Amino acid sequence: MDKISPFAPQSLAVLPAIDGVRLAACEAGIRYAGRADLLLALFEPSTSVAGVFTKSKTASAAVEWCQEHLPHGMARALVVNSGNANAFTGMRGREAVIETARAMARVAECLEADVYISSTGVIGEPLDPSKFTGLLAGLAEDAQADAYEMAARAIMTTDTYPKLATRICEINGVQVTLNGIAKGAGMIAPDMATMLSFLFTDAAIGPKALQSILSPLVEDSFNAITVDSDTSTSDTVLLFASGAAGRRGCPRIARDDDPRLDGFRAALFDLMRDLAHQIVKDGEGLTKFVKVTVTGAQSKAAARTIAKAICNSPLVKTALAGEDPNWGRIVMAVGKAGEAADRDRLAIWFGDIVVAKNGEVAPTYKEADGAAFMKRDEIDITVDVGVGDGANTMWTCDLTKEYIAINADYRS
Amino acid sequence: MDKISPFAPQSLAVLPAIDGVRLAACEAGIRYAGRADLLLALFEPSTSVAGVFTKSKTASAAVEWCQEHLPHGMARALVVNSGNANAFTGMRGREAVIETARAMARVAECLEADVYISSTGVIGEPLDPSKFTGLLAGLAEDAQADAYEMAARAIMTTDTYPKLATRICEINGVQVTLNGIAKGAGMIAPDMATMLSFLFTDAAIGPKALQSILSPLVEDSFNAITVDSDTSTSDTVLLFASGAAGRRGCPRIARDDDPRLDGFRAALFDLMRDLAHQIVKDGEGLTKFVKVTVTGAQSKAAARTIAKAICNSPLVKTALAGEDPNWGRIVMAVGKAGEAADRDRLAIWFGDIVVAKNGEVAPTYKEADGAAFMKRDEIDITVDVGVGDGANTMWTCDLTKEYIAINADYRS
Repeated sequence: MDKISPFAPQSLAVLPAIDGVRLAACEAGIRYAGRADLLLALFEPSTSVAGVFTKSKTASAAVEWCQEHLPHGMARALVVNSGNANAFTGMRGREAVIETARAMARVAECLEADVYISSTGVIGEPLDPSKFTGLLAGLAEDAQADAYEMAARAIMTTDTYPKLATRICEINGVQVTLNGIAKGAGMIAPDMATMLSFLFTDAAIGPKALQSILSPLVEDSFNAITVDSDTSTSDTVLLFASGAAGRRGCPRIARDDDPRLDGFRAALFDLMRDLAHQIVKDGEGLTKFVKVTVTGAQSKAAARTIAKAICNSPLVKTALAGEDPNWGRIVMAVGKAGEAADRDRLAIWFGDIVVAKNGEVAPTYKEADGAAFMKRDEIDITVDVGVGDGANTMWTCDLTKEYIAINADYRS
Repeated sequence: MDKISPFAPQSLAVLPAIDGVRLAACEAGIRYAGRADLLLALFEPSTSVAGVFTKSKTASAAVEWCQEHLPHGMARALVVNSGNANAFTGMRGREAVIETARAMARVAECLEADVYISSTGVIGEPLDPSKFTGLLAGLAEDAQADAYEMAARAIMTTDTYPKLATRICEINGVQVTLNGIAKGAGMIAPDMATMLSFLFTDAAIGPKALQSILSPLVEDSFNAITVDSDTSTSDTVLLFASGAAGRRGCPRIARDDDPRLDGFRAALFDLMRDLAHQIVKDGEGLTKFVKVTVTGAQSKAAARTIAKAICNSPLVKTALAGEDPNWGRIVMAVGKAGEAADRDRLAIWFGDIVVAKNGEVAPTYKEADGAAFMKRDEIDITVDVGVGDGANTMWTCDLTKEYIAINADYRS
């Protein structure tokens, strides 16, 4: 894409090396010309893996492969291509995945079941793995411990900048590192989206504990964002723990309720939320980064449903694009969500500005204040629906003409 | 709005007079200048009424009023204003409705409970009924039996043309007439939208039977359309039956299962679907009228959910705007709908063109054929999800830059 998101970071995060993880990327010419579109990550033996995937009923062949092998819990390699999602490609799609796993297993001298695969890009076009299986051996030789930026660039589709984040924490007094890369841009909605995120750490955590830690954190990070309400066939979050910190005295932990993991869990959540926000901030055509908090709902789930209805409403999103403090459309979205709300106790805030309370415009509210607020780049909206204690927060962006331009022309 | 929909009818339907129904409209200056924004319809005594309303949890005061009085089943007057929805206006909103009903009841010399009220337009701004209550007496004097076009124009908001339709049928050999007007344009989604439709007939049908006939017909007409997935606080369909055909020998019918009503039911459904399609064809900024049929689902409801997911997907809608035969996005939308679908039996047709079958692109499909098909004004898409016998059809339009322009600027 030509135009870089106005929310692109001034400078990219520099990710440190993680022992036991090596990365390489190259141009395989799968769809894009002149840029890397193939990523390989290699993990040392005893690396455990956890994953969360799209709930789409038409999930891609690569997603099915990962889901099938995840219970096994160990990983030696990750192969990701961009440009072709290998989704809705029938039997040939499955064969492409098997062929990729086989080629990678030969190169890494590991089980096919230890190979994780992701594909992102156009749906419905056959993916020819012979375009890149021959490149895997060379990539494995070139793999470096600090190639995260190259890796993040290789998985981009319509993203305008690579998404990178890193955190440090301690487990039992030993420092461990968490790195993450992600891609997003289109088809972003809760229950994940054309969103890939790969997370890496040198912590030594058993696969069951790793999965138990990862799954709930997705809910308030990657599943709390929406760009356009569309959910893809390929969403994948994979977390690889090489265990290399064990050589520096870090204990190998098998239970997710071990209190020594508290710091790790907090750092992982922070890392995931950072990447999730980076994805929204690269939403196609966006000009506003928007936080929507719903309080006073019957439950957390009800608050999420209402927040989602607000975040996904084309009328709310176009009002945001137009810098129009049209809070009536928020009322409409609350109403259509279908969850309990007391119209006559409804309250709305733009930042700290009380816009409406007790079911009508606040006597102190001035349209000029709302209009000035809407000119900000980052907008936060709070809605209290007046029936209970359930609260939830989601992040989204506005809906602009640029979104249409990007998506009316993406494939043609 | 400046630009008239490309699907506007070449000439408007001319609606005949219906005995027992008189209409008038005028400029009350509620919000718009230089156009009628107030509609009055008067009904002769013994007119029965049936209605279906928004399911919004933040329904407007006028909707609540109508719902409250509908069980009573009789109507003498209808007052509709455009420009202000009187929604989310708290106690003042309720008072505005009561004041309107009181003024109208005085003019029509009827019960307040016989007065039906609708408001459409901006949400959250107080509606001052004194702007128009003084005009009702004059309107009642001016009311004409054939003023349907004027009536249809008075209820428009961002509509680019008035929506009118008429049908004739027989009840027990006596001819009766059905007329309908509607407005739509924004916030159009199943479970109704900022959609008002008022239907009139001289048939003599008791209120309970009238309601039993109307309710199920909404499901496959007004509730089978979606422009932008947004649902308004004010949606209303009201059907008034003056019974005046009784003077020409038409029997008064009290039971909805009376076989003499078969022709009436069919004509009413046809009229409602015609008006529903007219609403989609005036969708904000549209360039395509799109019919989506889902077959092979687990149930009719499941087919509706999948059809709705396709119709409301921004990525599908922008592909349609770009004339891009991007059927991968249809697969994505089927997947995100959450209803059972067999990815490996999925089939897709553009008109008669087999695009995909058995879960992958059809061997006979040529991209050039799909691209040529997408250049049509009216697009029909069929998807078979391969798990059952449930089928459903919905109508929608594409999502264009023009939609954004209209909705980013509507209120400011």
